[in-house]
Amino acid sequence: MNDSYLKFVNSPFGARLARSLGLPKPEVLRRYRADRPEFEGLVAIGAGREPRLLDALANLVASIGVTSVAHESAGLWVPLAHRHGLLTGRFEPAEAGSQGRLAALLFDASGIEDSSQLAPLHAFFHDTLRSLGKCGRIVVLGRPPQTCASPRQWTAQRALEGLTRSLGKEARRGITANLVYVAQGAEGGAEATLRFFLSPRSAYVSGQVVRIDPGAPGRPADAAAAASVPAFDWSQPLAGRRAVVTGAARGIGASIASVLAAEGAHVIGIDIPSARDALDATLRQLNGTALAFDIAAPEAPAQIAAALDEQGVDIVVHNAGITKDKTIAKMTDAAWQSVIDINLGAQERIDDALLAAGILRDGGRIIGVSSISGIAGNLGQTNYATSKAGVIGRVQSMAPQLRARGITINAVAPGFIETQMTAKIPLTIREAGRRMNSMSQGGQPVDVAQTIAWLAHPGSTGVTGQIVRVCGQSLIGA
Amino acid sequence: MNDSYLKFVNSPFGARLARSLGLPKPEVLRRYRADRPEFEGLVAIGAGREPRLLDALANLVASIGVTSVAHESAGLWVPLAHRHGLLTGRFEPAEAGSQGRLAALLFDASGIEDSSQLAPLHAFFHDTLRSLGKCGRIVVLGRPPQTCASPRQWTAQRALEGLTRSLGKEARRGITANLVYVAQGAEGGAEATLRFFLSPRSAYVSGQVVRIDPGAPGRPADAAAAASVPAFDWSQPLAGRRAVVTGAARGIGASIASVLAAEGAHVIGIDIPSARDALDATLRQLNGTALAFDIAAPEAPAQIAAALDEQGVDIVVHNAGITKDKTIAKMTDAAWQSVIDINLGAQERIDDALLAAGILRDGGRIIGVSSISGIAGNLGQTNYATSKAGVIGRVQSMAPQLRARGITINAVAPGFIETQMTAKIPLTIREAGRRMNSMSQGGQPVDVAQTIAWLAHPGSTGVTGQIVRVCGQSLIGA
Repeated sequence: MNDSYLKFVNSPFGARLARSLGLPKPEVLRRYRADRPEFEGLVAIGAGREPRLLDALANLVASIGVTSVAHESAGLWVPLAHRHGLLTGRFEPAEAGSQGRLAALLFDASGIEDSSQLAPLHAFFHDTLRSLGKCGRIVVLGRPPQTCASPRQWTAQRALEGLTRSLGKEARRGITANLVYVAQGAEGGAEATLRFFLSPRSAYVSGQVVRIDPGAPGRPADAAAAASVPAFDWSQPLAGRRAVVTGAARGIGASIASVLAAEGAHVIGIDIPSARDALDATLRQLNGTALAFDIAAPEAPAQIAAALDEQGVDIVVHNAGITKDKTIAKMTDAAWQSVIDINLGAQERIDDALLAAGILRDGGRIIGVSSISGIAGNLGQTNYATSKAGVIGRVQSMAPQLRARGITINAVAPGFIETQMTAKIPLTIREAGRRMNSMSQGGQPVDVAQTIAWLAHPGSTGVTGQIVRVCGQSLIGA
Repeated sequence: MNDSYLKFVNSPFGARLARSLGLPKPEVLRRYRADRPEFEGLVAIGAGREPRLLDALANLVASIGVTSVAHESAGLWVPLAHRHGLLTGRFEPAEAGSQGRLAALLFDASGIEDSSQLAPLHAFFHDTLRSLGKCGRIVVLGRPPQTCASPRQWTAQRALEGLTRSLGKEARRGITANLVYVAQGAEGGAEATLRFFLSPRSAYVSGQVVRIDPGAPGRPADAAAAASVPAFDWSQPLAGRRAVVTGAARGIGASIASVLAAEGAHVIGIDIPSARDALDATLRQLNGTALAFDIAAPEAPAQIAAALDEQGVDIVVHNAGITKDKTIAKMTDAAWQSVIDINLGAQERIDDALLAAGILRDGGRIIGVSSISGIAGNLGQTNYATSKAGVIGRVQSMAPQLRARGITINAVAPGFIETQMTAKIPLTIREAGRRMNSMSQGGQPVDVAQTIAWLAHPGSTGVTGQIVRVCGQSLIGA
């Protein structure tokens, strides 16, 4: 749970020693605190040809109350910002003393239709990256490649992924870099996602690609996005909503329950009967409801459905999971079966029960927990990786079916998160896991929880069928 | 070009020293040689419920002339193999002395429709993995998740990816593990791909997922696969075909030219005028044609089209590429532009010229070269990673358009390949790049070339729109 190296190299003596030995110096990540402003500092705006998302960005900048400066690539920004009543200036390329004065870099690449039009991206990040402060934010905005009219446009939009991931690996200093593809007609539905990526809530989410689709199918594009995002209060977005979290007694599950409750949700925490005391304690603190069920039991889906039936539920977070690591030659049949069943089968059975009975309400959210192991595979984890790859399949297969009901389904894929589980990993392997990412450190349970809260947000209607890694841009992947 | 550690630890003294110090011992990979049998040894067959691909596997086993043994999970295999006139036996779980007697493990998971049916995969690999010899082959076969009728089936099929990648990371000893999804109706079009993954030609290709679709759209499923694979000779599959390779003077390009020529193609090698001597020498050896053009020049596409016009071309390999690494703050506009233009723009312009004029014939092949950097991003390579991510977009966007003409488009994504370029990387970084993969070593140019030859194969009609990494299952990804 404790990264003593991170603390040491951020002490005055440790910093000096690390510098003289050339050791990595992970940044202390800025995380969300209710008693501190969520958004502050200067945001630099850049753009390619014919940017289509500047209006959405102007609304965002006005909504979160920051000040913007326009890079020369974004000539349209200044008059637009003035029309939106925003104070804005022009970005001056790094002069002495200007280092670190920017909080975020936003680039609108939505109008780029050909690989020959990518140069403004270079100009913008060339000029601005050194002026971005510690724990700064980079967000590149484009159009979903698969929705592009021509192969040339698709290609240029797909190229943004290589740029964004490279920027994340270059920037270091706790800076995150993410790519948000906003589909035509989804411009009005991007704010919750952009807020998340600009906020300290996304401290450990970097190198990710997220697509925002129009929220509801079969309606005129612009109307759809507006119509499908229900009214909510940005400070208590989950107020009035009921959220089920499995494995909620401790660790990441308890953190998820806590964050969802802080956002206004009534949380129903589920955990196995043997964890009943911890579960009760966690949920009591949150004014939530504790349900001690073994989700692997055949009768569990019906029991959970019965317990939720009267009031229904809006958010289901499938966090419960186990590991039983062994190389496959030494892995028992029982170790294989129980990991698949608890991490994947139970989730399928519970969702099916809640969906069939209409207990998960229209406009609801299902959020699974996958893993980097489910993406990349892992030594000694054939069972776990199989189950977690299955979670990805679950998300991808259910999303189209659930669109008609306005229900989204997504998963987070945690990398190295500091928990009681990772604290038991031998030191050298633990150190490798911690440092092999763009943040040079492990994440915290709250980083997973905040990512889930964004996916659970009523403003995230356009985000479905997606896997978001919470891994500090781990090197490991497939 | 020279991995001296690999040689050392495979010497008698080096092996002893490495063992006593606990150092990694990379296997000397078995690679294809024309003077050695391509396929030999015992193949173990496993299967889940209602396997649909055993007939295709029986045809394959007969065609490549190996002997099979049936694991108890594949009860149907023995009578089926007998009907195909094959000698077969039953697999006996590892007794003393049986280690390493198997050359390949093949599992047919195509009938699995639910996560509760995955147990036979555990049983098979639990029993057989230790009996698989050095440089052995693991191939798991399934159905493409996105074609599955139900979310449960999609989920279970998608779960195979986590298993296969984990097996690759566990197996070590030069063993590869790959997942082949065969669509309904594409059973007859899987042989070229299965041969590749069972052959020493795929020595450095592991942890990959490949999808085989029915070859031609709009025809009855089974007829399509059969009808769209033209007649060819397995020993000279590219006989009568003309292949263009850019950047062919040296390194990976020269290796591609050489392998395609060995498979029977007439190779037209292109490289810049300053490399004319090397280009001429390479192509002279192959009885090919040398064309000294700068592909970045505006007139190049028309010149190349004119040079190829009379006889047309069947295979286009876009291998030419450059790097100009710098962090973006230090990267000049020219370094950005030239990398994007040569690695991506030139490819777009050449393809468009060849396609518009019908010079690339129906049933043709386009093969791009992407990179792990294009998938994962890389420090100091914003330009290169952007261009290589664009290559992925090019493949994904063009594949649907080209299906009607029977043209496939795919890309390889090399990881750490031993070349003059990687020989210049500082030793410690080079060592990390070499060892951070399931083979604990860099690949050879021929590994990239053989993968391209498989994609160029007339039997690979059903493989399109795909990115195949040639990386020894590098840890690095996204």
